[in-house]
Amino acid sequence: MAQERVVYINGEIVPESEAKVSFRDQGFVTGDAVFDATRTFGGVIFKLKEHLGRLYDSLKYMRLDPGIPQHQMADLTMQVLKANQSLLGADDDYWVIQRISRGVPIGGGKYKPTVIIECNPLPFAARARYYRDGLSVVIPSIRRTPPECMSPRVKVHNYINLILADQEVKAQNPDAFSILLDINGNISEGLGSNFFIVKNGVVVTPKEQYVLAGISRETVIELAQGLNIEVQEADVDLYDVYTADEAFVTSTSFCICSVSSINGSTIGDGGVPGPVTDHLQTAYSGLVGINIVGQYLKRLG
Amino acid sequence: MAQERVVYINGEIVPESEAKVSFRDQGFVTGDAVFDATRTFGGVIFKLKEHLGRLYDSLKYMRLDPGIPQHQMADLTMQVLKANQSLLGADDDYWVIQRISRGVPIGGGKYKPTVIIECNPLPFAARARYYRDGLSVVIPSIRRTPPECMSPRVKVHNYINLILADQEVKAQNPDAFSILLDINGNISEGLGSNFFIVKNGVVVTPKEQYVLAGISRETVIELAQGLNIEVQEADVDLYDVYTADEAFVTSTSFCICSVSSINGSTIGDGGVPGPVTDHLQTAYSGLVGINIVGQYLKRLG
Amino acid sequence: MAQERVVYINGEIVPESEAKVSFRDQGFVTGDAVFDATRTFGGVIFKLKEHLGRLYDSLKYMRLDPGIPQHQMADLTMQVLKANQSLLGADDDYWVIQRISRGVPIGGGKYKPTVIIECNPLPFAARARYYRDGLSVVIPSIRRTPPECMSPRVKVHNYINLILADQEVKAQNPDAFSILLDINGNISEGLGSNFFIVKNGVVVTPKEQYVLAGISRETVIELAQGLNIEVQEADVDLYDVYTADEAFVTSTSFCICSVSSINGSTIGDGGVPGPVTDHLQTAYSGLVGINIVGQYLKRLG
Amino acid sequence: MAQERVVYINGEIVPESEAKVSFRDQGFVTGDAVFDATRTFGGVIFKLKEHLGRLYDSLKYMRLDPGIPQHQMADLTMQVLKANQSLLGADDDYWVIQRISRGVPIGGGKYKPTVIIECNPLPFAARARYYRDGLSVVIPSIRRTPPECMSPRVKVHNYINLILADQEVKAQNPDAFSILLDINGNISEGLGSNFFIVKNGVVVTPKEQYVLAGISRETVIELAQGLNIEVQEADVDLYDVYTADEAFVTSTSFCICSVSSINGSTIGDGGVPGPVTDHLQTAYSGLVGINIVGQYLKRLG
Amino acid sequence: MAQERVVYINGEIVPESEAKVSFRDQGFVTGDAVFDATRTFGGVIFKLKEHLGRLYDSLKYMRLDPGIPQHQMADLTMQVLKANQSLLGADDDYWVIQRISRGVPIGGGKYKPTVIIECNPLPFAARARYYRDGLSVVIPSIRRTPPECMSPRVKVHNYINLILADQEVKAQNPDAFSILLDINGNISEGLGSNFFIVKNGVVVTPKEQYVLAGISRETVIELAQGLNIEVQEADVDLYDVYTADEAFVTSTSFCICSVSSINGSTIGDGGVPGPVTDHLQTAYSGLVGINIVGQYLKRLG
Amino acid sequence: MAQERVVYINGEIVPESEAKVSFRDQGFVTGDAVFDATRTFGGVIFKLKEHLGRLYDSLKYMRLDPGIPQHQMADLTMQVLKANQSLLGADDDYWVIQRISRGVPIGGGKYKPTVIIECNPLPFAARARYYRDGLSVVIPSIRRTPPECMSPRVKVHNYINLILADQEVKAQNPDAFSILLDINGNISEGLGSNFFIVKNGVVVTPKEQYVLAGISRETVIELAQGLNIEVQEADVDLYDVYTADEAFVTSTSFCICSVSSINGSTIGDGGVPGPVTDHLQTAYSGLVGINIVGQYLKRLG
Repeated sequence: MAQERVVYINGEIVPESEAKVSFRDQGFVTGDAVFDATRTFGGVIFKLKEHLGRLYDSLKYMRLDPGIPQHQMADLTMQVLKANQSLLGADDDYWVIQRISRGVPIGGGKYKPTVIIECNPLPFAARARYYRDGLSVVIPSIRRTPPECMSPRVKVHNYINLILADQEVKAQNPDAFSILLDINGNISEGLGSNFFIVKNGVVVTPKEQYVLAGISRETVIELAQGLNIEVQEADVDLYDVYTADEAFVTSTSFCICSVSSINGSTIGDGGVPGPVTDHLQTAYSGLVGINIVGQYLKRLG
Repeated sequence: MAQERVVYINGEIVPESEAKVSFRDQGFVTGDAVFDATRTFGGVIFKLKEHLGRLYDSLKYMRLDPGIPQHQMADLTMQVLKANQSLLGADDDYWVIQRISRGVPIGGGKYKPTVIIECNPLPFAARARYYRDGLSVVIPSIRRTPPECMSPRVKVHNYINLILADQEVKAQNPDAFSILLDINGNISEGLGSNFFIVKNGVVVTPKEQYVLAGISRETVIELAQGLNIEVQEADVDLYDVYTADEAFVTSTSFCICSVSSINGSTIGDGGVPGPVTDHLQTAYSGLVGINIVGQYLKRLG
Repeated sequence: MAQERVVYINGEIVPESEAKVSFRDQGFVTGDAVFDATRTFGGVIFKLKEHLGRLYDSLKYMRLDPGIPQHQMADLTMQVLKANQSLLGADDDYWVIQRISRGVPIGGGKYKPTVIIECNPLPFAARARYYRDGLSVVIPSIRRTPPECMSPRVKVHNYINLILADQEVKAQNPDAFSILLDINGNISEGLGSNFFIVKNGVVVTPKEQYVLAGISRETVIELAQGLNIEVQEADVDLYDVYTADEAFVTSTSFCICSVSSINGSTIGDGGVPGPVTDHLQTAYSGLVGINIVGQYLKRLG
Repeated sequence: MAQERVVYINGEIVPESEAKVSFRDQGFVTGDAVFDATRTFGGVIFKLKEHLGRLYDSLKYMRLDPGIPQHQMADLTMQVLKANQSLLGADDDYWVIQRISRGVPIGGGKYKPTVIIECNPLPFAARARYYRDGLSVVIPSIRRTPPECMSPRVKVHNYINLILADQEVKAQNPDAFSILLDINGNISEGLGSNFFIVKNGVVVTPKEQYVLAGISRETVIELAQGLNIEVQEADVDLYDVYTADEAFVTSTSFCICSVSSINGSTIGDGGVPGPVTDHLQTAYSGLVGINIVGQYLKRLG
Repeated sequence: MAQERVVYINGEIVPESEAKVSFRDQGFVTGDAVFDATRTFGGVIFKLKEHLGRLYDSLKYMRLDPGIPQHQMADLTMQVLKANQSLLGADDDYWVIQRISRGVPIGGGKYKPTVIIECNPLPFAARARYYRDGLSVVIPSIRRTPPECMSPRVKVHNYINLILADQEVKAQNPDAFSILLDINGNISEGLGSNFFIVKNGVVVTPKEQYVLAGISRETVIELAQGLNIEVQEADVDLYDVYTADEAFVTSTSFCICSVSSINGSTIGDGGVPGPVTDHLQTAYSGLVGINIVGQYLKRLG
Repeated sequence: MAQERVVYINGEIVPESEAKVSFRDQGFVTGDAVFDATRTFGGVIFKLKEHLGRLYDSLKYMRLDPGIPQHQMADLTMQVLKANQSLLGADDDYWVIQRISRGVPIGGGKYKPTVIIECNPLPFAARARYYRDGLSVVIPSIRRTPPECMSPRVKVHNYINLILADQEVKAQNPDAFSILLDINGNISEGLGSNFFIVKNGVVVTPKEQYVLAGISRETVIELAQGLNIEVQEADVDLYDVYTADEAFVTSTSFCICSVSSINGSTIGDGGVPGPVTDHLQTAYSGLVGINIVGQYLKRLG
């Protein structure tokens, strides 16, 4: 069907409904797979090279050889995006995602890896209200898995730690957004998102070790530096957040979205976005050539 | 093809090669799935009820509703086993496994779960030498994920922590068997196996909290009690293991397999099995109606 | 005014409205004070001796000398209760509380302690619905202060740790009841309450070290033993609670109140009280000579 | 009596002996109160704005609304100071302290906050010998409460952790000064004081997260920077202190007081103040317009 | 000289003054050596077999082969004791100690072990006052090395952790006796001594994992059981000790010596020995055939 | 014998074979001793002053007075080196080591310290292949002793923690090189060596607190800064190492030696030395006036 998006899977480009993996695929059986996700802005892919660099670091950490060099992965990614471009609605954009699993056993303790490249429309409508109202962040009781067990800096398919945290929070408030503490009690990250606060004009975000080094996080840090806003990577705890002037999260999909409360306590005076957040959103829009705030808010209808 | 084993998947029984899941299945994308695995002895399934009890506890912990009550899961399991029984070689046996993943998104943040029931022949030949020589256990530097991040007592599809540990150990010695310490430095467990030591006639195994409460582990504890052998569930550290008289692991496939060394240091005098282990293996064989040691050793050819 | 309850304070018995402490009292300035609280059943005081034993242990730990021996503290307590007895409504009961603060500075780094004994009516009406519906327990992100900083077994006036936890939970759901994890991720206690689960007929409660050794907790343990119900003091984690058959809290005021959910996940089948809890409530009622459940439920109107 | 100092309490200014709180005040019962303390130099108040900024951060963290905006709190503070100014001896100075407790219950789980503003003469005579001899710092076995239980950066009325530490140390040596380690084994802080070392000309002090961010601490950091002395906020452990050239504490009352030994081991060559400390004391005196060292030493008689 | 005691060293029995090791001996250079120490009672050696069992467990843990089987080590020990017996004063007794170091390098990364067996008179006079007055136990800030770094259950020549603790305590009070907390904040052990409390008639001592499993500790546990006194091996924290009725330490030299205070806080009513301690001392004397208390007290002169 | 090297021991210079310590020397019995080791380059001693500064810091930490001031220790060191210089082979070099132990007991709890100064030829031949192939680093399960037990920054004779780690690693691969994690799971150090990685042109090494502050480490940091290579002291975890471009260790003997793999995973593309390492080796050679790489490689024969 012409309307169906296509997926690259192990050398073929097939309709999404036909893209399947064996029930013995190690990605399914043990989550033994890595991925990375960039997005488009106005249909143009963003920082593909940085995302692939991180993907190949994840592969190295997992001792997983995709059988495809990085430049070819870039080519295949562009091919998949191109094949799906015509299905992209006006003002819509895609996540563009590579996934490599350990694959299926082929005997002798060896595996044939599974490689997938997919496009997925960004959920602007479902999340537009967060851009209007700010996110209500709630800290669950569950702590982020520590690096001595599994590095949070690798994008693997093992998300139960983050999913349990999210279930805990959403059971109290389905609209809340979960951010976890690390095992030392410092803020770490949420499901695919980094966390920032602003206090006395300084932007502060958790150090990289306990969180994924988000590309959006890195982009915000560079934008802030370009605007002469001081940025610190530091241990951030609940005292910092309760007494912050502003707070926001960054992610591939959100770019920069304001946080309006933490555990039910208003951040600053509660107005979103705060001035520094606003400044950074404007700079982000300039960088990507799209009004990132408007793209969300226009879905409010 | 008549020779191919069959699998239950979402209401159908299909050949293994046709049992596939969507690349958007949450079991594949995030490891958001649980499973349990029992085995047959002489083709007869073992403690199915206990395994399903644990499976439904895992489902409860993960807030995952399979849409199938426990008694029906038992019926389906027996159906799958029966369908595959004729393919079981003489002296061979099956793992019998249920898997339930969160499944595919159906809109509104909801998912349709994926339910799979499969049979998989036990790898007696590949592991027979471990029964002859004992396992060479090596402790990796990676620690077992702590319960405040994700309980080790739930059989979820998130195995990266254990896989990283195993990669570390096998990179030094492909024949070594990895057992992890927990974050307090006590022995926890390996990839699907529990660990026991014997010292001065007392059998000691790590407490349940940091390890999966294996059904084989429970079976050994009950057998030991029946033989008037004292059993302790306690913190076990490297001192205990280095100075132990005997050590062994238990798992669904292994039942009870001796450990001959830990980090290259011989356990006891190095002979396997030690007298208490031997005693327990005999009792296990009696319980399941199969010579569990002989079933492995006869593959040595 | 005849209707006003009276309070013992530093040698005098005065109306509550006149019982005041200096703004320099160390109990006010630093929370440097200890207390204990028992209650009456049908106007009769319960286990005063056990409560005073614990009070004097708290005083010993805090190196605080009340200047009053334990037997005299008992006499004074009975005097205060007697003076307030006529103000107790039908079916009502009192908390009876001793408080000793370091008091006011008298020079040379010395202090004159403040001793208070008070009666406070139990809030049956405000809490009756918890007896009907069970408590919705939510685990906050904040952890219970560890013993190497301040022992949770001492009843001191430093409650901020528990108050912060409760604020976090009540900001999401004003009706929720907070129970904290300790720094190892095990269940500890809530604001003045101990936590129990029932699984396969066994009653399990956290070990004493990370929680106050509640007198009601001790009473329940003894009642269970009298009923031949197995009781374990053990590390209890979230897996245990999510998969429990029943759960309840104990406290001086609640005695035994069922828990119906944990972090939004139903305990057992959700019906309260579960059979073991019911059994224990009946035994508790027998011990104290009052229907402890009825005393709450009759307030539902 | 004309000689008695006055206190602001809930809208009134009354003599100290009449300033009392209910025995049900939550500040008394649970230590649920915050405070901040600045001092005068030559009768002139120091950095009131910075102290009030920190006070309102403490209130925010505790979700406690004093019902008085910050500028009015400043006015009231100045009023109380003015009312007490005539009672200040020559060469004497005041602590000036605001305290806000959750107050007394008014039904429905609500409270009426208690607001107190007081002046308290600084204990120059009692502490003068510390300026002459340096402080004998001893590290107790008790650790500072970690931020995941209660942030040390909030000035709450919960001081038992610090009081227990001080009792431990003073039981061995009544003249010793307690400084606690945090739960990672790094130096944190003492009862209302921050700790600094000097090594090879560099001034080092523990990072803010595990310690109260003292205003005097901040003042010293700024003075050092003004003098081109390098300052580091870092993890400081016992090795750093044992091998330091100089050490000192800062507090509102002490400003900068030398440390002559740690756990009985002489700091540097034992002479106090060391050259860098001396330099900073001189700069501090310049900033506040008072010889801070002389103010203490003149009491030696 | 006839009056000089002799030592076994590497196959020879020589006077103590001639018993020397190379400055390259690994026992000297890295503390890579193990030992064990028993004592005599009335000149008769005590539980040599148990001590040698522990010694050979230490050797196993350290992968150190003394080149001498256990029964020969027993013979050599008796030989050294016999050779020194005539030098033992009336009412005096010996420590009898085996030491095995990794020894001197002999090329190729190999070493020739050093084996030493010595006798050392017990310091009854120097410690007699502790038996009279009880020990003043002080807890240092330093924590006992955790098992994941080096097991406290192995008697190696690495004592700096315990020496640093003792220096800290003795710098405040040269007569104080140091007992360390483990990294979880529980009581562990002191320099060669185990710690016990008595509360409500029950004897409690720290679990074995964080402490050396002292032979005297084991002896006391067995004696208590023989006297129908309940014994618990459990986590013991400062609350337990501050509120204990009695406390004592055990060691090879002390056997059982009362503790009169902890961190300056009196244990029980301060009288030593308490009734349970007294009971155990009497039983110990009966077991060893010597009045263990009298042997110390008669030195008081 | 003219060919034997000499040693300074307690005021005398004697042949190595005569340099012995009593079996009661506290350095032997408890490892209560400190040391420092520099080396020569072309026979010329390197940074003696820095090494002695660190030695006297170690002595201060251990409260150990060698009875010899620092300048005299320097003179004695030069005397010993001079006396041994003629025995140094062409292209050979010495470690030059000072050792001070607590020494032998002299009554009253006092000791007479033992002072030793020795020369030891560097093992160029035995280690040459590491310079050619790079080191195979393996992380053991054992963690580095934390500073709250004993500071890793002090060079004491207590090496069991590092020796146990090395035994664990070498039992799997006798050629492997052990580097330990600290108790937080970050890279710390190996037996006498510091660890560095290079990523995107930036040189990163663990912060000083959990590792000995090596003089070679400091030299490399200064050389890198001189070459305008950015250097960071930071938490380094396994993710950093697995994804690094280059890695190397520094030590007095090695200076700078490449690491080719970590836990069997190739560092970068596996070629050694990497470009930044090569750059630093060249600068190091320039500084010390010797080709540090050539000195090793010429032994390959």
